Amino acid sequence: MIKMDSKKPSDSHTIMTELVLPNDTNLFGNLMGGRLMYWMDIAAAMATQKHCNAPAVTASVDNISFENPIKLGNAVHIEATVTRAFNSSMEVYLKVYGEDLIQQYKYKSNEAYYTFVALDPHNKPRQVPQLIPETQEEIKLFDGALRRRQLRLILGGKLKPNDATELKALFVKD
Amino acid sequence: MIKMDSKKPSDSHTIMTELVLPNDTNLFGNLMGGRLMYWMDIAAAMATQKHCNAPAVTASVDNISFENPIKLGNAVHIEATVTRAFNSSMEVYLKVYGEDLIQQYKYKSNEAYYTFVALDPHNKPRQVPQLIPETQEEIKLFDGALRRRQLRLILGGKLKPNDATELKALFVKD
Amino acid sequence: MIKMDSKKPSDSHTIMTELVLPNDTNLFGNLMGGRLMYWMDIAAAMATQKHCNAPAVTASVDNISFENPIKLGNAVHIEATVTRAFNSSMEVYLKVYGEDLIQQYKYKSNEAYYTFVALDPHNKPRQVPQLIPETQEEIKLFDGALRRRQLRLILGGKLKPNDATELKALFVKD
Amino acid sequence: MIKMDSKKPSDSHTIMTELVLPNDTNLFGNLMGGRLMYWMDIAAAMATQKHCNAPAVTASVDNISFENPIKLGNAVHIEATVTRAFNSSMEVYLKVYGEDLIQQYKYKSNEAYYTFVALDPHNKPRQVPQLIPETQEEIKLFDGALRRRQLRLILGGKLKPNDATELKALFVKD
Amino acid sequence: MIKMDSKKPSDSHTIMTELVLPNDTNLFGNLMGGRLMYWMDIAAAMATQKHCNAPAVTASVDNISFENPIKLGNAVHIEATVTRAFNSSMEVYLKVYGEDLIQQYKYKSNEAYYTFVALDPHNKPRQVPQLIPETQEEIKLFDGALRRRQLRLILGGKLKPNDATELKALFVKD
Amino acid sequence: MIKMDSKKPSDSHTIMTELVLPNDTNLFGNLMGGRLMYWMDIAAAMATQKHCNAPAVTASVDNISFENPIKLGNAVHIEATVTRAFNSSMEVYLKVYGEDLIQQYKYKSNEAYYTFVALDPHNKPRQVPQLIPETQEEIKLFDGALRRRQLRLILGGKLKPNDATELKALFVKD
Repeated sequence: MIKMDSKKPSDSHTIMTELVLPNDTNLFGNLMGGRLMYWMDIAAAMATQKHCNAPAVTASVDNISFENPIKLGNAVHIEATVTRAFNSSMEVYLKVYGEDLIQQYKYKSNEAYYTFVALDPHNKPRQVPQLIPETQEEIKLFDGALRRRQLRLILGGKLKPNDATELKALFVKD
Repeated sequence: MIKMDSKKPSDSHTIMTELVLPNDTNLFGNLMGGRLMYWMDIAAAMATQKHCNAPAVTASVDNISFENPIKLGNAVHIEATVTRAFNSSMEVYLKVYGEDLIQQYKYKSNEAYYTFVALDPHNKPRQVPQLIPETQEEIKLFDGALRRRQLRLILGGKLKPNDATELKALFVKD
Repeated sequence: MIKMDSKKPSDSHTIMTELVLPNDTNLFGNLMGGRLMYWMDIAAAMATQKHCNAPAVTASVDNISFENPIKLGNAVHIEATVTRAFNSSMEVYLKVYGEDLIQQYKYKSNEAYYTFVALDPHNKPRQVPQLIPETQEEIKLFDGALRRRQLRLILGGKLKPNDATELKALFVKD
Repeated sequence: MIKMDSKKPSDSHTIMTELVLPNDTNLFGNLMGGRLMYWMDIAAAMATQKHCNAPAVTASVDNISFENPIKLGNAVHIEATVTRAFNSSMEVYLKVYGEDLIQQYKYKSNEAYYTFVALDPHNKPRQVPQLIPETQEEIKLFDGALRRRQLRLILGGKLKPNDATELKALFVKD
Repeated sequence: MIKMDSKKPSDSHTIMTELVLPNDTNLFGNLMGGRLMYWMDIAAAMATQKHCNAPAVTASVDNISFENPIKLGNAVHIEATVTRAFNSSMEVYLKVYGEDLIQQYKYKSNEAYYTFVALDPHNKPRQVPQLIPETQEEIKLFDGALRRRQLRLILGGKLKPNDATELKALFVKD
Repeated sequence: MIKMDSKKPSDSHTIMTELVLPNDTNLFGNLMGGRLMYWMDIAAAMATQKHCNAPAVTASVDNISFENPIKLGNAVHIEATVTRAFNSSMEVYLKVYGEDLIQQYKYKSNEAYYTFVALDPHNKPRQVPQLIPETQEEIKLFDGALRRRQLRLILGGKLKPNDATELKALFVKD
């Protein structure tokens, strides 16, 4: 096992801003969900590669809910930060805001968790540095990452619900 | 309440095929996850609009896991079908295959559930036709849709785990 | 001469679906002809590569007539099938439909024949498998392919009209 | 019938130059045929709109043969000129050259005829000015336009081969 | 004259991050200068619109020098801040960094000044709020803005060199 | 020092025409400045590579002023010509016209000077052929190139104003 320096969430912090152009919109003149997920994927790729200093690819995306549509001509702000590192995978937390520059109005659009895997030159998973959370918010995200990972494994058929100790506690109160 | 004719899953069945071009790929020459989610969103938009004959927009996307990367020059096949209709929302099931046309090798890449909402001209949710499943596979997807919906509501903070009767059964065996 | 297994038209059948976005349209809000020919070229490339399991490039495109314009927000359905294989070239038949998903109205837009050539790693034409048509429709397309090929050769200045036996019969009735 | 000033071919002459970028290429690093047809369509649209000073849309494209592939990083030169005007339609002649700027080598890639129709604000065909050819080359293209039009009508099933007087002469020598 | 609240430079601060994809690169695999100027224009548009809360368009771009090329797969960071507001125009200062995420190496690529004009709904210039600089760096940029404006006017032929008091001092030392 | 044949400005003359599509426009339906600078960069790349027959990359762009906005659906004409060659760099003069094809109205939009550097396969600057101007206009541009180069060096902090003999003369009249 290679010794690696651990990293802080702020080391991976990435801010991305895009302007909604005509081809990004649906028939209502709002940003298409798929276009937004594409941008989020690129922001997450940059954040995780900052963390592990190696090429990394999308492994999974957790449930995303689209709350407030972002309009044509508005700005899209995406903030991405690695929340926790596992062996070769990293969870990224993404927050998306829309901003009507003319009306000076900024609104939360949605948030999501993407998981990336670091790869070596032979396309095999490679070890990534540990992440040490510092702030309250970072610790909360770090702790939740384990529960979300269990859910991902269950949803992917790789863990039996009964073995998901953390998650089970949500449903079963003794 | 408007009377509407119900629809079958096959009414919404949509097949989309894309070719992976250089700008769609990451540093490994594989299709970027975000690009694929963009195409899946467009396929899902077409399937749901076929079902409800009204404009529909992305409401949420369930956990997606990316199994087999799709290579530059390969074809991407996306099949989208509405699995169940609720009041104004529709769940779509998407299956994605990669195909190496030269090696004559077709492989499953991933699958996902997208949820769309139909909107009226004032941007308000509007009622959609019911979906009546016919085949075994369609009935299974139809039944599972309720459980996935509960999970979405819990994950979105709109339902308490204890009230998710269907889902709870997965964790608690009497 | 390498022995190759023959193929059926259904082996190459390719379905492609696109959504007309703002940047695909002319000043009337209709799909530009050139954009459609681009998508048809990609569909034809996939169909021919399925047939010959080798890289193939566009050799020629027959006369295309654009009948019904496809509107912004409508779906474009392209079906491509190899109709006949010659030494190293393959003729593909493409049918294009527009679909107004909201009005539930599907209409034929146009049809075309593209010809592709299979290439070896040195960029030289390489032999492709024979095509054996099965259905009535497939046999009709297979037979017509010879006549269309003569017309292509005449138009390309590679065949004298008098030697185009099949085609000549159209003009001269004894 | 509205009185309109006639135009010369040089009034519509349009020169377009593009650089072949990675996303325009196939697996051999050559410009895709479909991408080239897209650019030719835009060049033809500009040439015809210069002639008729009204919006015009693609009506048909004649047989195109792709002779010399254009490589990644090479320049693509497209020259478009209206050859003849009919009632509401115009035929455009397009010549395409590739240019290897580094090797200082310019080569003919292909040529084609596109037909455009001028439309009024109600999407109905509208009359276009006559075209008066001046040079030898222009007169030759003008004369050939009639023969090509007959071929288009025959191929489109709108004219019987026997009525195509000009074209028939090619096959039948008394 | 309308009374408007003045703004601070930080009110307009905009951070944009892009990933260099294949189609953004030249034959050396480096980001094309034109592609970068396109992204800088969008960043500047967002910064100025944050300042004036009105639509604003590019009026001019000062001399840009491209120092360090940014490589395929690297991140591009653009920071844009309004440095000074005139009647209806605003100067924006842009700093561009490249980042090799794998090598953990961030380098300055270039910097530039863009000028934007705010427009009213009739496409006429409209008044913008004043900018009050706060930090040392902001004051320096604010002061320099006048000198750069004189240079712009001279280069645009709208000011005689002799009347450019600030600029003249650079060349003539008494 | 390698002996190279000198070139004329006409050897590098490049004409590029683009059509303004929806995604190229700002909220006023006019071509975005950044999009135009991107096209100008590609035109300049082609002109300089025609001059030096070697790969060349953008080194700097002089002050650009955007006079007349170009509208959606209008044509953009860019003319690029090398004005002078230095050791390894070349200055290109670009003129941009908009054209409303329907109204038959052509208008000057803006002009600019881009500087490119020729590179050898090791990414090092390489010598380029000299440019010999012929016409009055070409000689004027050739002469001005020296003055503009001094200004570029001063603005880039590589030349002291007092050493810019040519430029100084503009400000100091004896």
